[in-house]
Amino acid sequence: MDAYKTLREEAYEANMEIPRRNLAIYTWGNVSAFDPGLGVFAIKPSGVAYGELKPESMVTVDLDGRVLDGKLRPSSDTETHRILYREFGGIRGVTHTHSPYAVAWAQARKPVPVFGTTHADYGAEAIPCSEYMSEEAVGNDYELETGNLIAETFRKQGKNPAHIPMVLVAGHGPFTWGNSAAQSVYHAAVLEEICKMAHLTLALDPLAGELPGYIKRKHWERKHGPGAYYGQGGQ
Amino acid sequence: MDAYKTLREEAYEANMEIPRRNLAIYTWGNVSAFDPGLGVFAIKPSGVAYGELKPESMVTVDLDGRVLDGKLRPSSDTETHRILYREFGGIRGVTHTHSPYAVAWAQARKPVPVFGTTHADYGAEAIPCSEYMSEEAVGNDYELETGNLIAETFRKQGKNPAHIPMVLVAGHGPFTWGNSAAQSVYHAAVLEEICKMAHLTLALDPLAGELPGYIKRKHWERKHGPGAYYGQGGQ
Amino acid sequence: MDAYKTLREEAYEANMEIPRRNLAIYTWGNVSAFDPGLGVFAIKPSGVAYGELKPESMVTVDLDGRVLDGKLRPSSDTETHRILYREFGGIRGVTHTHSPYAVAWAQARKPVPVFGTTHADYGAEAIPCSEYMSEEAVGNDYELETGNLIAETFRKQGKNPAHIPMVLVAGHGPFTWGNSAAQSVYHAAVLEEICKMAHLTLALDPLAGELPGYIKRKHWERKHGPGAYYGQGGQ
Amino acid sequence: MDAYKTLREEAYEANMEIPRRNLAIYTWGNVSAFDPGLGVFAIKPSGVAYGELKPESMVTVDLDGRVLDGKLRPSSDTETHRILYREFGGIRGVTHTHSPYAVAWAQARKPVPVFGTTHADYGAEAIPCSEYMSEEAVGNDYELETGNLIAETFRKQGKNPAHIPMVLVAGHGPFTWGNSAAQSVYHAAVLEEICKMAHLTLALDPLAGELPGYIKRKHWERKHGPGAYYGQGGQ
Repeated sequence: MDAYKTLREEAYEANMEIPRRNLAIYTWGNVSAFDPGLGVFAIKPSGVAYGELKPESMVTVDLDGRVLDGKLRPSSDTETHRILYREFGGIRGVTHTHSPYAVAWAQARKPVPVFGTTHADYGAEAIPCSEYMSEEAVGNDYELETGNLIAETFRKQGKNPAHIPMVLVAGHGPFTWGNSAAQSVYHAAVLEEICKMAHLTLALDPLAGELPGYIKRKHWERKHGPGAYYGQGGQ
Repeated sequence: MDAYKTLREEAYEANMEIPRRNLAIYTWGNVSAFDPGLGVFAIKPSGVAYGELKPESMVTVDLDGRVLDGKLRPSSDTETHRILYREFGGIRGVTHTHSPYAVAWAQARKPVPVFGTTHADYGAEAIPCSEYMSEEAVGNDYELETGNLIAETFRKQGKNPAHIPMVLVAGHGPFTWGNSAAQSVYHAAVLEEICKMAHLTLALDPLAGELPGYIKRKHWERKHGPGAYYGQGGQ
Repeated sequence: MDAYKTLREEAYEANMEIPRRNLAIYTWGNVSAFDPGLGVFAIKPSGVAYGELKPESMVTVDLDGRVLDGKLRPSSDTETHRILYREFGGIRGVTHTHSPYAVAWAQARKPVPVFGTTHADYGAEAIPCSEYMSEEAVGNDYELETGNLIAETFRKQGKNPAHIPMVLVAGHGPFTWGNSAAQSVYHAAVLEEICKMAHLTLALDPLAGELPGYIKRKHWERKHGPGAYYGQGGQ
Repeated sequence: MDAYKTLREEAYEANMEIPRRNLAIYTWGNVSAFDPGLGVFAIKPSGVAYGELKPESMVTVDLDGRVLDGKLRPSSDTETHRILYREFGGIRGVTHTHSPYAVAWAQARKPVPVFGTTHADYGAEAIPCSEYMSEEAVGNDYELETGNLIAETFRKQGKNPAHIPMVLVAGHGPFTWGNSAAQSVYHAAVLEEICKMAHLTLALDPLAGELPGYIKRKHWERKHGPGAYYGQGGQ
C-alpha cells in the first residue's frame, strides 16, 4: 500500500485545485495521477466533497480497472481515465470538470477556434469536440465508452494528444491531461479561460476569424517547440 | 419548544448556504426544514440578514400555517413553503432564492432545456416554468397561491416533483426542494449552474438541441435509478 | 466639529459597503449621509481609495455647497449629491457608483423594464434613464447640472423619487438614494442586481415583456404599501 | 546591484496587483518599472507564479536589452516592454495581462468606443487595436516586433500615448502604461472594466453610439486637463 503514497498525494493535491480554481461546484470534477512504471493511477472517490478529501481517500486502480486499495468507491468516471491512460501514451494525469464555459461549448457541440495567442500557447489548433455517444455505446459501458469516444475523436480528426491536451465531450463537458496530475488540472483551468475568451469574442463579432497560421505556430513553438524560450527551462 | 431544536438547526445551516453559495444578496432567499412526523417546518424569519441569523431565530410553523414559536415573523414566503409540503409528499426541505441566471429564465418565462449531462444528472427533462399568476390569485393570498401555481404547473405538465426537484415561477424566480433542507439548497445551487450553462450554450448556438433521450436517461439513472452507482451509496 | 461626528461615521460605513459589495473598483463611487435638521451632509473625499478612508476623512458640506470642515477636498460629485438633497425632499443618503451592469444600461441609454418581482419589490415601474446632458449644461457646472438633469428626468417623466429610488444618467452611470446613507448604498447593490437580471433576460428573449401590472403593484405594496408585511416591521 | 533595489521592489509590488485584481491566471501577465535616470527597468521573471515571486526575483534590464542582474530569465515579453520605454518617452511602467474582456476585444480586433464617462475619464478617444503582426515581423523577433507594432499603431492612428495609456494587440491582448509601474497596472484594471462595460453595452444595443464629444472632453479634462479638479491634487 505504501507504494502508492506519493501517487495518492499527487492526486489529492491536484483534486484540491478544482475548488480553488472554481472549476466545479460540489463533487462535479475529478483528477487522477498515473505512474506508468507501476501501471497504476490514484483517483478521487465518487461523490465525496472536496472539503472532506484527504490523501488517504484517493483510490488506486490498475490499467485493467481493478481497485487495488482504498475503502471508498472510485470516481464514477474512473473508466474514462483508465482508457485515456491506455490510449494516450505518455500522459500522467487526467482531469474532468464541469466548468461552465467549457460545458457551454460542449453543449453547443462546437470546437473552440484559435482566436488568439492565449489559446495558441497551449495548442496551435482548435480544441476538438466529439460527436454524441451512440445509443449502443451508452448501453454498453458508458464511462469506458466515453474514453473510447475521446480516443476516436482524436483518431478521426488526426489530432495528437501531445499537441492539444484537451477535448470537449459533446453534451457533457471537458477532459484534459498532462505530464502530471497537476498539469492536467492546470490545463482544465486554461481551457475554461480560453472557452470564456472565445465566447466573449463571438459576442463581439459572430464572424470573428482565427489567428493567422504563422502566429498560431509561433506561440505554440515559443512554449513547446525545440527552441522554446518561455519560462525558466524547467516546466 | 425543545422538540423543534434539531429542525431549527437544520433550517439555520441550510439558510447559511445561501450567502456562502452566492444564491442571493441581502435577504432575498429562504430555506425551510420539514419534519413529517411532527407536521412542522422551521423557516427563516422575514427580512433578517444572513449574518444576523442564529438557529434560535428560525420560526416554526405547522401545516395549517400556525406559528408555533419564535419571536420573529416568519418569511413572507412561508405560505408557499407550506403548500409545497402539503402538495409534494415526501419532500423535507424547500428553498427559494433570487439567483440571477435562474431569475433570468423565470423572467424570460422559458423552461430550461436539457442541453447536457450536468442537467440530466438531476432530471431527465426540462426544468418547468409556470405561467404568470392570474389577477384573481394575486388578489387572494399571493404567497399561498404561489404554492398552488407550482403544484398546478406540475399537474398540468404531468411532472413528478421526485423526478425534477426544481421549478421557475414566471416573472419571479426559482423554488427547489429535496429530501432535506440541505438538499433543497444544494438543488438551488445546481439549478443556478444549470441555468448559467444553458444561457451560455444558447449564446453560442440559439438553435442548440437537447441531449438525445438515451443519454438523458442514462445520466439520471446512474444517479437515481434502481442500479445507481454514483457516490458512496449513502446519498 | 463634533456635531457632525455621527454623520461622518454614517457616511464612512456606507462608503465602505462599495468595495464590500463590488460596486466600484478603486475610487469610482461615493456615498453621502444627510442630516436635514443640521442641513449638512458628510461625503467621501475625492480620489481617496476605500482602504485608506477613516470616519475623520469624510468631508461635511452644507446645502449651499460650503465645506464646513475636513482637510480633504470633497468628492468631485459633491454638487450632484447637494442638488439631490435640495430637490428630493425626505432623502437622507445618496450613492453614486460605476457598477458594470448599471453602467451598461446607462451607456445604452435605456430605462430598465420591470421584468420580474425582484425589480417590483423596489419600484413598480421602469428605472428611468436621463437624456445626455446638453453642451450648455456641461459648459456651466457639470456636477451641479448632473443633479439638475436627474431632477428634471423625474419631473418630465412624472416620477416620484420616493417610489423609485434610483436613476441612470445617460452615458455615465447610476445614482441611488434612500432614507439613510446605508439604504442608498443598499439600493445601489439592488440596482446592479436588477440590471444584471434584466440583461440576462433580454439575452434569452430580446422581446421579453414586462410583468403584468397587478403583480408589479402587489410586490411593491407588500414591501412599501399601507399594509406592508415584509420584514419585521422595522425597516 | 543595490542601485536597483527600489526599482525591483516597485516592479514586485505592481506584479502582485495582477492576481489581486484578477487580471490574469497563473503566469499570464507581467509588469515592469522603469527608471529613466538609470536607463534600466525591472521586470517579472518568465513563467514564475505570482505566489512564488519576491522582490529579489525581479530581473533588471537596460534599454539595449542586456540583463544586468537576476538569476532568472526575464519575462518572454521583455523586448516589448523595452521598445515601449524607448518609443513612448516619459512612461515609467508597462503592464501586459490576458484579462478576459480586453482579450476578447483584441481577438475581435475592434477598437473600444467611448460609450461612457468611465472610459472618458482615462481617454477621450477609442482604445486603439493594432492590426495582426505581419508574417515577416513574426519571423524576425516576435516580442520586439510587438513593441514596434504598438508604436506603429499609435503613429498611424495619430494617437498620443500620454492621452490614451492603453492598447489592444490584435489576436493577443492588452498592454498599458503609466507614470509608474503601479499606474500601469492600475490602467490594466481600468481597461478590463471599460472593456467589460462596453461589451455589456453592445449586448443591450448593438448600435449604441459614442458619448457626445463635449462630454468626452469634459471628463478627460476634469482629471487630466490644466484645470483638473478630481482627487486631492497629488495623483
